[in-house]
Amino acid sequence: MTTPYQLYYWDGLQGRGEFVRLALEEAAAPYVDVARHKQGMPALLSCLDGAQVDHPSFAPPVLRAGELLIGQTANILMYLGPRHGLAPRAEAGRLWANQLQLTIADMVNEVHDTHHPIAVGKYYEEQKKEAKARAKGFREERIPKFLDYFEGVVARNPGRGGYAVGSKLTYVDLSLFQLVEGLRYAFPKTMARLEPSYPALIALRDKVALRPNIAAYLKSKRRIAFNEDGIFRRYPELDK
Amino acid sequence: MTTPYQLYYWDGLQGRGEFVRLALEEAAAPYVDVARHKQGMPALLSCLDGAQVDHPSFAPPVLRAGELLIGQTANILMYLGPRHGLAPRAEAGRLWANQLQLTIADMVNEVHDTHHPIAVGKYYEEQKKEAKARAKGFREERIPKFLDYFEGVVARNPGRGGYAVGSKLTYVDLSLFQLVEGLRYAFPKTMARLEPSYPALIALRDKVALRPNIAAYLKSKRRIAFNEDGIFRRYPELDK
Repeated sequence: MTTPYQLYYWDGLQGRGEFVRLALEEAAAPYVDVARHKQGMPALLSCLDGAQVDHPSFAPPVLRAGELLIGQTANILMYLGPRHGLAPRAEAGRLWANQLQLTIADMVNEVHDTHHPIAVGKYYEEQKKEAKARAKGFREERIPKFLDYFEGVVARNPGRGGYAVGSKLTYVDLSLFQLVEGLRYAFPKTMARLEPSYPALIALRDKVALRPNIAAYLKSKRRIAFNEDGIFRRYPELDK
Repeated sequence: MTTPYQLYYWDGLQGRGEFVRLALEEAAAPYVDVARHKQGMPALLSCLDGAQVDHPSFAPPVLRAGELLIGQTANILMYLGPRHGLAPRAEAGRLWANQLQLTIADMVNEVHDTHHPIAVGKYYEEQKKEAKARAKGFREERIPKFLDYFEGVVARNPGRGGYAVGSKLTYVDLSLFQLVEGLRYAFPKTMARLEPSYPALIALRDKVALRPNIAAYLKSKRRIAFNEDGIFRRYPELDK
């Protein structure tokens, strides 16, 4: 019997951990979502503590895979991808998938900054005015710039099937699904307006949602609902 | 004769391209810094245009290596590392190096946001007040949090030699050098105060500066000086 993966991520929110969960769920890989179990928080915190582990992480998510402790979302996905048929085999394809994942990560960082433009350590309510200004630029310039890019990547991919990379599903597709879902949650008005411009990306989102393992996951209790502790937050004053 | 690498990055600033330049210079790898030559800008822009290339990048830096066109700084370094003796050979070491590089990238993003907290597309002067607030949190909380982490990584690395990963120089060390140099340029007062707390990190910075290829590069015209078009900018009102 194989040892299940252990995923360390804050309980109660999707956050960056969700990109890893989607890959594990699609792969039907056995894993324990550690912090959602008793005594999980001390275990999570030990992954961040260099006195306790050889390769401490600056922040979760962290994945334990046997002897390895791996941090940084894109790095975890790069590890999981080829092991579970969720990444191309050849180096060129793996680099391209990683490049796209890092660009998704850049957009996710910018989503976070829409509600925390001034200080990570302060509450949203303490930086609400600045958040409005930042969200305006994000809605009007950054969302279209990023989604234009991803739409082009999917639409121009010569591999058949409507995926981002090659002709098979990869972890990049799962992350693009999560990106669209998150943007829909946080910026529903903006997305309703913009989505008709992104037919390839939305078709990919729909295709991912229909995959049996993903559909089952989304209906399960393991899928935490979007909420205002995560990265994608619905603050109506930030959407227009 | 091997085809030289082609690096595509904005002319006139170090920016994220500098992390790639340092690796190429340490490796004494032949490369052309395309945008710094005649007709370089159209060539750079074509890397971002999906109508012209198979794997367009969202933003520079982009590296052309033979048939491959590779975007995202950490992805480029992951490609170059094992080819030039600047990364561990084993997977565990390569993942750890990549994890650290991605954490450096996270800090670099936050440095950028100190002068652009509201909108990437607006001038610093249009968001100066918010920049002061963001820089305060960055100086007081984020710099110590990130540098505590990197100091611990270097100090606790069981490999001899004072490097970040294993017992040999890797691209992570070159990037940590650049991070310290950039922070010194942008936040001289803050760094003067904090540096005594980071002896292992500063010793690593000094060791990198003394490497013959790096020392020669830093004295050459190829090294662009820090300036207020880059990521690390010296605005005295943001430092205290």
